[in-house]
Amino acid sequence: MSDPQQTSLRLGIAGLGTVGAGVIKIVRQKANVLAQRSGRKVEIVAVSARNRDKDRGVALSDYAWEDDPVALATRDDVDVFVELMGGSDGPAKAATEAALKAGKDVVTANKAMLAHHGQELAELAEANGAVLRFEAAVAGGIPIIKSLTEGLAGNDIERIMGVMNGTCNYILTRMEDAGLSYEDAFAEADGLGYLEADPNLDVGGIDAGHKLSLLSSIAFGTQVNFDGVELEGIGCVTIEDITQAADMGYRIKLLGVTRLTGRGLEQTMTPCLVPATSPLGQLQGGTNMVVVEGDQVGQVVLRGAGAGEGPTASAVMGDVMDIARGLRMSTFGQPATSLVAAKPAKATVAAPYYLRMSLEDKPGAMAKVAAALGEAGVSIDRMRQYSHDDATAPVLIVTHKTTRAALDDALGALPETGVVSGAPVALRIEEV
Amino acid sequence: MSDPQQTSLRLGIAGLGTVGAGVIKIVRQKANVLAQRSGRKVEIVAVSARNRDKDRGVALSDYAWEDDPVALATRDDVDVFVELMGGSDGPAKAATEAALKAGKDVVTANKAMLAHHGQELAELAEANGAVLRFEAAVAGGIPIIKSLTEGLAGNDIERIMGVMNGTCNYILTRMEDAGLSYEDAFAEADGLGYLEADPNLDVGGIDAGHKLSLLSSIAFGTQVNFDGVELEGIGCVTIEDITQAADMGYRIKLLGVTRLTGRGLEQTMTPCLVPATSPLGQLQGGTNMVVVEGDQVGQVVLRGAGAGEGPTASAVMGDVMDIARGLRMSTFGQPATSLVAAKPAKATVAAPYYLRMSLEDKPGAMAKVAAALGEAGVSIDRMRQYSHDDATAPVLIVTHKTTRAALDDALGALPETGVVSGAPVALRIEEV
Repeated sequence: MSDPQQTSLRLGIAGLGTVGAGVIKIVRQKANVLAQRSGRKVEIVAVSARNRDKDRGVALSDYAWEDDPVALATRDDVDVFVELMGGSDGPAKAATEAALKAGKDVVTANKAMLAHHGQELAELAEANGAVLRFEAAVAGGIPIIKSLTEGLAGNDIERIMGVMNGTCNYILTRMEDAGLSYEDAFAEADGLGYLEADPNLDVGGIDAGHKLSLLSSIAFGTQVNFDGVELEGIGCVTIEDITQAADMGYRIKLLGVTRLTGRGLEQTMTPCLVPATSPLGQLQGGTNMVVVEGDQVGQVVLRGAGAGEGPTASAVMGDVMDIARGLRMSTFGQPATSLVAAKPAKATVAAPYYLRMSLEDKPGAMAKVAAALGEAGVSIDRMRQYSHDDATAPVLIVTHKTTRAALDDALGALPETGVVSGAPVALRIEEV
Repeated sequence: MSDPQQTSLRLGIAGLGTVGAGVIKIVRQKANVLAQRSGRKVEIVAVSARNRDKDRGVALSDYAWEDDPVALATRDDVDVFVELMGGSDGPAKAATEAALKAGKDVVTANKAMLAHHGQELAELAEANGAVLRFEAAVAGGIPIIKSLTEGLAGNDIERIMGVMNGTCNYILTRMEDAGLSYEDAFAEADGLGYLEADPNLDVGGIDAGHKLSLLSSIAFGTQVNFDGVELEGIGCVTIEDITQAADMGYRIKLLGVTRLTGRGLEQTMTPCLVPATSPLGQLQGGTNMVVVEGDQVGQVVLRGAGAGEGPTASAVMGDVMDIARGLRMSTFGQPATSLVAAKPAKATVAAPYYLRMSLEDKPGAMAKVAAALGEAGVSIDRMRQYSHDDATAPVLIVTHKTTRAALDDALGALPETGVVSGAPVALRIEEV
């Protein structure tokens, strides 16, 4: 069906890194199957990048060249502007806005731009009768945006959990598998080219937080609110935490969780413990996973490559093919003007927590910690103290279910005990 | 976007079992969110079932009643005929055909009907400008049809694997976990109401084979060919097989595999060994999983509930919402008239096999078996013979990679050795 116009769909691609090159390869190599599936020819008419002379392994001579992505985005012969430059502002945003204002559809892989400007760009698209699609921005090749927006449209979404930064998962996996320190695993990932130019985008949870904020918008009909994501990177995780977690049947993941409760929109992207036998716990290496929980469907798990040329280009082409087929969806699953501003809320759902702290070697030290926790209403499920040969002893505690507020009270009271050295580490144990 | 007509979308539902009741509950309880997401009201105008008086836990008094599903399907006030009766022919097919001929869209959960008549029904839909959608027919709540047809449309699909019959997976899981015989696990599943009226639909692999044949059509642009699915049920699997497989690091699953090779369309739905640590191997109980391998995206895994009121109704509503939003797709991802008839082929990809046979207690018996395998070109990776106290000894063999043809030659030659008692069991070890 799909109401195919008999004209071809003409793409202008800005940004010719690995993903851009991957998209060009697909359009060139699969011309016949794409036309068969969509009912019309999909072709590239023009491209733009910072450096015209770089060898990208694909021939560009068939395409018009534009130095300026804004000029590319507004060319008369471009139907769809494919934005693969990246960056939350600057040329990516300028060209996206120009394309939408000219009534052209936009396909982007740019999570930062949408996390910061998703609402205004979605409104701009609608005002101009254009679509703005971003499957490639979240979890690489996994068709999570489509599944959530369309396939699960009959559900009230109760929770989404995601491991959506492959670099972090690679580092955590290598720490466990090879017994590396965080620093050594980080250095290894860096040597393999896995880290962004600003590594804090990865290990600080920012990149994954961008993605989570986009999923929240679709799931709950709320305006994208990246500033409302509680972010904590994986830099606090030690090899001891990983070993101890494994001993107790858990693995540590940089886990995004989003829920809409009566108190507001709870979005966290923090290191968490998850059962080692769960799908999330079994996710090793650079792979991504998103777990969607709907009131009707129950738990649906999607797993796949979260980055890389082929997977990301696959997601871009999914959006392009939708447009070619005449499948036109709102950016976040409903009219942008109907998305509501959700109040960010601290996570209120009670959970057990894993705590690690250093106790000074004084009589009654453990009792004082237990008392401080107890006074804040935090009760202890399990506690382990390890042998030691310096002045402080590592102590691990797993609490019973408690709220983050009570836990923060307890953590705030610990310095007053005079027996805790340094800042404790507290990681939520997420029931999955 | 989605070109919403401002009129409501009017459903006529035939078949009011658990899924039909689930759909009615969603449409009633989520009226606002469905309208917000689709831009128009979704409502039920008429229903049909065999027994009008049965209590289904949902109020039907608001809807017109039709005894005849064909009459329901062709009512002037029905926009979408929702077929939840089941059965490959009979009323389901008659009403679906009547709806399509009347230009009405059809949403169905009926895998048997589509496995047998998918091509003609898809052509009928197209000839009448209607869409025919079937997300609920494959793997319950998992949005696999949408993911494969739309999200992964930029890929050449290389292989699809699926565990798509929850009852079989439940039986196999219970055999392993509780040490039950096949017969006892079957009886337990039966007692829990997990089995179809004709249990062979489940344990014979027919139901899962239906689903596999639909995935093949989308993946490869071929006409549905259920008769080309090589079917083998789980009745041959013994507790010993499960124990031995586990010992070697495998689990046994009723696994569907489909590939298009130069020799033809290879579709198998057979018990296979998969690595216990793989996502498929870790799938326990009644859950479903589909693994899609695309040339661009690599391996994407989708997991979720394969049956039940909520999950199946969720899938039905995904299709209904697409129609409400104006997202109109070809049934199998491209015009039905462009789907090609694919020649069914025996699986040609070489794989290791697990063999179990009973050897008679004669001198040189093992040597004779090894010789018979070797003459057929099948080489042995591992072999175990177990102690025994009767006249035959259980022997387990894992072969090196071999073709099914060579294996069949070897199996054909075994009786001539005079030392093998009964028919050997041969299960493929699928690399996942």
